[in-house]
Amino acid sequence: MMDSLLIRNAWLDGRTTNILVEGGRFKDLSAAPDALADRVLEADGMAIVPPFYNTHTHAAMSLLRGYADDMPLQKWLEDFIWPFENRMTSADICEGSRLAVREMIRTGSVFFSDMYFDIDQTIDIVREYGLRAAIGVTFVDAHSKSQREEKLDILRHWSDPTGGMVSLTVAPHAIYTVGEDLLVRCAETARELGLKLHIHLSETRREVEDCLRDHGTTPVRYLDRLGVLGPDVIAAHVVHVDEEEAAILAERGVTLSHCPCSNMKLSSGIFPYKMLHQAGCRITLGTDGDSSNNNLDMREEMKFAALLAKVSSGDPETMPAAEAFAMATRNGAEAFGIDAGVIAPGKLADALLIDMRCEKMQPCHNFLSNWVYAADSSCIDSVVCQGRILMEHHEL
Amino acid sequence: MMDSLLIRNAWLDGRTTNILVEGGRFKDLSAAPDALADRVLEADGMAIVPPFYNTHTHAAMSLLRGYADDMPLQKWLEDFIWPFENRMTSADICEGSRLAVREMIRTGSVFFSDMYFDIDQTIDIVREYGLRAAIGVTFVDAHSKSQREEKLDILRHWSDPTGGMVSLTVAPHAIYTVGEDLLVRCAETARELGLKLHIHLSETRREVEDCLRDHGTTPVRYLDRLGVLGPDVIAAHVVHVDEEEAAILAERGVTLSHCPCSNMKLSSGIFPYKMLHQAGCRITLGTDGDSSNNNLDMREEMKFAALLAKVSSGDPETMPAAEAFAMATRNGAEAFGIDAGVIAPGKLADALLIDMRCEKMQPCHNFLSNWVYAADSSCIDSVVCQGRILMEHHEL
Repeated sequence: MMDSLLIRNAWLDGRTTNILVEGGRFKDLSAAPDALADRVLEADGMAIVPPFYNTHTHAAMSLLRGYADDMPLQKWLEDFIWPFENRMTSADICEGSRLAVREMIRTGSVFFSDMYFDIDQTIDIVREYGLRAAIGVTFVDAHSKSQREEKLDILRHWSDPTGGMVSLTVAPHAIYTVGEDLLVRCAETARELGLKLHIHLSETRREVEDCLRDHGTTPVRYLDRLGVLGPDVIAAHVVHVDEEEAAILAERGVTLSHCPCSNMKLSSGIFPYKMLHQAGCRITLGTDGDSSNNNLDMREEMKFAALLAKVSSGDPETMPAAEAFAMATRNGAEAFGIDAGVIAPGKLADALLIDMRCEKMQPCHNFLSNWVYAADSSCIDSVVCQGRILMEHHEL
Repeated sequence: MMDSLLIRNAWLDGRTTNILVEGGRFKDLSAAPDALADRVLEADGMAIVPPFYNTHTHAAMSLLRGYADDMPLQKWLEDFIWPFENRMTSADICEGSRLAVREMIRTGSVFFSDMYFDIDQTIDIVREYGLRAAIGVTFVDAHSKSQREEKLDILRHWSDPTGGMVSLTVAPHAIYTVGEDLLVRCAETARELGLKLHIHLSETRREVEDCLRDHGTTPVRYLDRLGVLGPDVIAAHVVHVDEEEAAILAERGVTLSHCPCSNMKLSSGIFPYKMLHQAGCRITLGTDGDSSNNNLDMREEMKFAALLAKVSSGDPETMPAAEAFAMATRNGAEAFGIDAGVIAPGKLADALLIDMRCEKMQPCHNFLSNWVYAADSSCIDSVVCQGRILMEHHEL
């Protein structure tokens, strides 16, 4: 019974049961209440659900939460965010990553796909808190040749200090900061090393207009022409696309990271969910950074995604609660090859305990509806990642 | 020092101070730490802010939370909500009101404007928990003549059992359930008795189309023609209006109750905030009922209001955090004649303590930005209404 956990009296799919975890995976969803285990997590009055997998964020930007709001994207970036970032030290990145990771665990995430500088600081924090991350090694044209070679070296010689919890991604920032040569090099490197490629794509109307001017086509078509798009690509935002681009994204198997709060707050535009979903795209959910959201709360992001999809399509049947939930949980896990996102025997033991005594969870005509539309982080009692308890009865 | 409260070490507008409350009002915002008071509320590490005034809800509908989602309004109402409501007993209304009031206090509201049946049950619960309410006495054509007279009698002979915490409003449900005669009678009654009039208005496109068909004009013009609109009117939703209607609403001094979550979830449409704000309308915030939101959380409602206004106007400067905050706090209090909504000497002592140690409140470049965009109810430590503590350190 090495490395085992018994989650006792949890409510799962309409029944109260005991759940045995061994070696970081769900072993038995109908265990005896006195099954032997190294640890016991009491779950009286709690539902057990899969946690969140946040597919697009910039963790250390938590330090810029509330630093600049209510202004256009270019002013926000050029007059506030970039000057602030230029002053950030490694110690700042460490502090920002710590704040972000604490916030993410508190709000129910056990994984995030990051894109920022100074990856060592963030990885140290991920290791300290025991969640998972896919850390982007960021590429922009502005880097010197030696900086670029150093980054490629890190990717080639990466050895995960956390024993499987942290992976790296190749992260060309966007088509407007990374030229053709480097985009192609990034895609080749990702394929050669079997890594994901993480990029901002079609976030703003200006990005599309500039792409048309500079490359004679739209961002999705441009990346497809370069051979960049494939099932290893995680494209964040994808707000401004037409039906043909939706078909391209679906056919190439690209994973989309929909970030509704960021797109709404910056007025970037409205993610055409109904069209992209009907085209068969794999859609996941991301919070983007704390500076443009202004939190990392995936439960809130589910509600924003669902309500925005409904009002923008004029159809309240668009994105029912179960679809928003799938985007925030198993779709994200699948996209990053994490064998989790559902509570099932053999799967990695990732879970949240949701306190059903919270007013927001009552009455319970429909658990998923309550969780997606009514709850908030105050209902999250405990967080488990790969059988380890990251938060127990509200204590990190 | 009868009936006094000392809020000790609270953070207010950039300084830490002690706040003395006497007779339900703020007396001194710079009191001595050892000022004599009947009770002390410790606020170390907490900011003090005005609480929320929810200007449109149906409290007892908390029992229908999650009962029917992700479907068109008519199907939702006719196949699910109304049949459920037909089966509800007074005991159900009591239970639903209790759940709603607990949820509202927990999420920081000290006032709600309600519209439902069986007002006695809801008033009892309001009295038990100590918050404020404006309880709508609902009128629809479907009532019998004696039911209508009974309701008018209640309005005429109302004597508040809570000593000033509960008022009644005259609440004709909507223009499609209440005919001209009764609308006019309601308006006359409200003016005669000095009460507010609470009505759903221009919520859906269908309401506008039916009004055009039946009355040859749009809902706002129709009500104005009947002489209903005035500074005593609280109009909920107001989604489908043109610029001329915005000018009418502003000129008549009507209070609008914007309910973004409900409008988005039911795909009713997008409240034209920028236009209505520029026209000079008084805009407040409401959650609508738990069955169409699906919660009563005004903090979440502020974020939805601000982000929806930005993305729908294409302008990120629309509805900055301070405007969303004003709508949810002092604008709502003012609309109902409650002498509160700001922390200032002489004002009714309504307040929340926000725990600044929450990750979501850190760092604090801009307190209001964190509160509107980043926080959630887990950051609300305590709730005070008219000097009485409704929730103390998370305990109701």
